[in-house]
Amino acid sequence: MKGLKGALVFAQSGGPTSVINASAAGVFIEGLKSKNVTAVYGAAHGIRGILDEEFYDISKEDIKELKLLKNTPSSAMGSVRYKLKDASVDDTDYKKILEVFKKYNVRYFFYNGGNDSMDTCNKISKYMAKSGYDINVIGVPKTIDNDLFGTDHCPGFASAAKYISTTIMEINLDAKVYDTPMVCVIECMGRNAGWLTASAALANYKGLGADLIYLPEADFNIDKFIEDVKGVCAKNNNKCIIAVSEGIHDDKGQLIVESLGQAGARDSFGHAQLGGVASQLANLIKEKTGFKTRGIELSLMQRCGAHCASGTDIEETFRAGREAVKAAVNGETDKMVCYERKAGDKYEIEYKLLPLELAANTEKQVPKEWIINDGTGISDEFIKYALPLIQGDCGMVKEDGLPRFAKLKKVLVPKK
Amino acid sequence: MKGLKGALVFAQSGGPTSVINASAAGVFIEGLKSKNVTAVYGAAHGIRGILDEEFYDISKEDIKELKLLKNTPSSAMGSVRYKLKDASVDDTDYKKILEVFKKYNVRYFFYNGGNDSMDTCNKISKYMAKSGYDINVIGVPKTIDNDLFGTDHCPGFASAAKYISTTIMEINLDAKVYDTPMVCVIECMGRNAGWLTASAALANYKGLGADLIYLPEADFNIDKFIEDVKGVCAKNNNKCIIAVSEGIHDDKGQLIVESLGQAGARDSFGHAQLGGVASQLANLIKEKTGFKTRGIELSLMQRCGAHCASGTDIEETFRAGREAVKAAVNGETDKMVCYERKAGDKYEIEYKLLPLELAANTEKQVPKEWIINDGTGISDEFIKYALPLIQGDCGMVKEDGLPRFAKLKKVLVPKK
Repeated sequence: MKGLKGALVFAQSGGPTSVINASAAGVFIEGLKSKNVTAVYGAAHGIRGILDEEFYDISKEDIKELKLLKNTPSSAMGSVRYKLKDASVDDTDYKKILEVFKKYNVRYFFYNGGNDSMDTCNKISKYMAKSGYDINVIGVPKTIDNDLFGTDHCPGFASAAKYISTTIMEINLDAKVYDTPMVCVIECMGRNAGWLTASAALANYKGLGADLIYLPEADFNIDKFIEDVKGVCAKNNNKCIIAVSEGIHDDKGQLIVESLGQAGARDSFGHAQLGGVASQLANLIKEKTGFKTRGIELSLMQRCGAHCASGTDIEETFRAGREAVKAAVNGETDKMVCYERKAGDKYEIEYKLLPLELAANTEKQVPKEWIINDGTGISDEFIKYALPLIQGDCGMVKEDGLPRFAKLKKVLVPKK
Repeated sequence: MKGLKGALVFAQSGGPTSVINASAAGVFIEGLKSKNVTAVYGAAHGIRGILDEEFYDISKEDIKELKLLKNTPSSAMGSVRYKLKDASVDDTDYKKILEVFKKYNVRYFFYNGGNDSMDTCNKISKYMAKSGYDINVIGVPKTIDNDLFGTDHCPGFASAAKYISTTIMEINLDAKVYDTPMVCVIECMGRNAGWLTASAALANYKGLGADLIYLPEADFNIDKFIEDVKGVCAKNNNKCIIAVSEGIHDDKGQLIVESLGQAGARDSFGHAQLGGVASQLANLIKEKTGFKTRGIELSLMQRCGAHCASGTDIEETFRAGREAVKAAVNGETDKMVCYERKAGDKYEIEYKLLPLELAANTEKQVPKEWIINDGTGISDEFIKYALPLIQGDCGMVKEDGLPRFAKLKKVLVPKK
């Protein structure tokens, strides 16, 4: 609805990225400028902050610190993994959210997250519409997994891809330094989508990548894997660098990390808590070949390595936040901001809006035809796709030789 | 001996660092300029390249690529872990080295490495002197471990410290993003010396560090550790960040990584191949508290993360190589280049020479009085010591948004 006047609430949800706060900066700075926005609030820990009425008053922050958010990793408002029940099953939370929105006259709501968060955002949007409460709801995408439907790529992905490809180039040089056999298995995040692991191919493009790359989009066979490694070693002076997704699985869908022995915990959305498959595969290869091996998990670093973020990603992510506010103030609701890549050789994107129900819960995987070499390589199509995204330095402000991250006052809004 | 004319051989040994090739660049560029140096050779894979007469002709390289070595991690000449026997026990290798030096008229020999490499360098130096073969032998230090005796700090340490402290700041933000308990254990390299793990304190100095820091200089008690963690969690909303050295051990000297279950392999020097203690401690805390935990191993990244290297370290390491050549050409031999910090508030170093036998095999540990808070913290003395070392950006050249590492031709010298 157009012409709404009221408070703006922005919340962050799910696993953070190294540039997620660029969107926060975009929403906050644009929100503070808008005449229709009477107050700018950040909710603490996603939807929990709304349920608990924990709002930070963003107008109390220094603009300089808000700008430093562009280079500050990990959700500055705090994150949450909280699954809203379907309103038809249990509408307790929805009623409470509506009550809070009314109490604080919230007319603009922005939810910043990945698939699960867009599902939450969609549910809230639909409930508010059904209740007849006038509010414009816009999803702001983020996920290093790059698996949101309907957008050319996701804010945060490129910075993780830049971290991973840079790091693999460095590891490639290090792991091959001795004149003795060395098999190195590097594990990237990604349960069902292999975009992050595929970004090892950017390192290959520079001649210092992974000899073998395994994504969850293809079935993983342990016996074939051992033969693949032996094949590379035979050709390559007994050296082999391997990139694997945490979510690789066999043809029956069983996770390799589970079949190799470690039963995984599950999070509140029922997703397996993965990690550890690199060490398992490294141990397996050691057992089978006697070679020295090393398993390396890129762990949290791949999603919080702001010092190695992509300048392009930061600017796009910042603008995604601004575009979300502009769209909402302009009357748009029930949408997610997305990127559309323009045709032509020069890389350029346009900001578009996608209905929230399309964004929610649909996972976009790496196209099967980009997986080549019998499931062990990535085609040049991926390079063409990903290379423009990792351009530009992060421009991080340093103090004493270390990152100067944003320091927010986080002044709580008095409860009403 | 002064006035020697002949070939220069430079070799690298032991675990690499992210700036080790800055010394290579220094030696090569200074060597190519010197009138006394008739040829500049890089030996492939340390002492092995001398034994096998595998020399790269550095005069065939582009100067631009030699300069790019300053930002290229991992020993560009290749490394080796090869232990020379005592000449009194078996002098086969020494005879061969002498024969090769004579054949190629090598009059300047530079060995670039840590404790074990300085031992090798010392043995070769002493043997050559005893044999009456005129050659000037200079050790060029490098080790992320920072444990070489007689130098204020070691080339390579500061870059690893900068990587570790930057990364811990980022992990600190990420690990605390949810409103739920989280204990995160971060493992740094360091068997006997805790300098790398201590550099977590630089992140503490910026307010985003580790709540508990455990070095191998203090005995580690598992029961006390669990109480330490519970204490921090109780005060800190059930969140705790921990930095540990891979080499932490109990009061009987047994490695924690071994007592917690994983028997380690040993390298050719008989050192335990560590790694994995972070996961073990994370699992232990999970078992004892039920909290979500995460073990993170900084693995090879801490020693090859050239994209996060210290500008100060790069320039000092480069100059260490140049000073080595200058000293040798000036008649010095049987020495290691070292750094002496000038007195006063302004950080400045002087390049000095230390007798090789003093540098070899003596480990310098973190002073016991810098370990505070009942073995869980690091004093401000360390900050004063380490902060000047991590200043300055790496100035890495990028191409396509990724590092542009040196590409050497590595033209082999025809065997004589």
